[in-house]
Amino acid sequence: MTDFLSAIPGEVAFDADGLIPVIAQQHDSGEVLMLAWMNREALAETLATGRACYWSRSRKQLWRKGETSGQLQRVVELRLDCDLDAILLRVDQTGVACHTGRRNCFFNRIEAGRISASEPVLIDPARLYGGQQRRD
Amino acid sequence: MTDFLSAIPGEVAFDADGLIPVIAQQHDSGEVLMLAWMNREALAETLATGRACYWSRSRKQLWRKGETSGQLQRVVELRLDCDLDAILLRVDQTGVACHTGRRNCFFNRIEAGRISASEPVLIDPARLYGGQQRRD
Repeated sequence: MTDFLSAIPGEVAFDADGLIPVIAQQHDSGEVLMLAWMNREALAETLATGRACYWSRSRKQLWRKGETSGQLQRVVELRLDCDLDAILLRVDQTGVACHTGRRNCFFNRIEAGRISASEPVLIDPARLYGGQQRRD
Repeated sequence: MTDFLSAIPGEVAFDADGLIPVIAQQHDSGEVLMLAWMNREALAETLATGRACYWSRSRKQLWRKGETSGQLQRVVELRLDCDLDAILLRVDQTGVACHTGRRNCFFNRIEAGRISASEPVLIDPARLYGGQQRRD
């Protein structure tokens, strides 16, 4: 993985803010878990450790997924798209991906002309973060 | 679908450029096909027609997926994530999603420290676009 990183960073098409969107997908079920962002440093760390590390646009710092909550993502495979400006990260998700305690972040469905939350809350968010501010 | 649109556009979190990233996923197999972008108008058209319409950032115009190539995406379901700043579009893809003639855009794998294209080319790109410039 380290070899890959030294070989390709110049080819990855980061945007004007130095970021690239990353789709995290559960590797075996195909479930789309979340969409997040990486900068060059987050991509390097992800490849070096085999655990997903993103860039938090709100906190403006590296976001080691699961560092606070324990809900880690082990990297199974990393792919780039045809334009090298999007990443598909196939992972094995521990527990839940969403800070709301749901398995994935895409739980807002359209019903009767309104957005309504579906998907069960599997873990109480208060338990995920132990009263701390949401960090992952 | 039209009801939904009139109800929610103010809630969708478009970015500073007025765009939102959209993950297109084959609804039955779970295959992630591509990542693209919508502005408000593209989202409105997608919901009104039931066919994926994106915003082309390179051409700066609406991109009716499959208009030139015939490789349409019929919308099965549209979901928003927890922050309402990403869309998961579950579709039924006709033919191939990628302009290279591959089924999906995420064919670049990491092998032996290099990016290498995997996944077979199912349709000759020249056939997709009939000698015209790539348009979708």
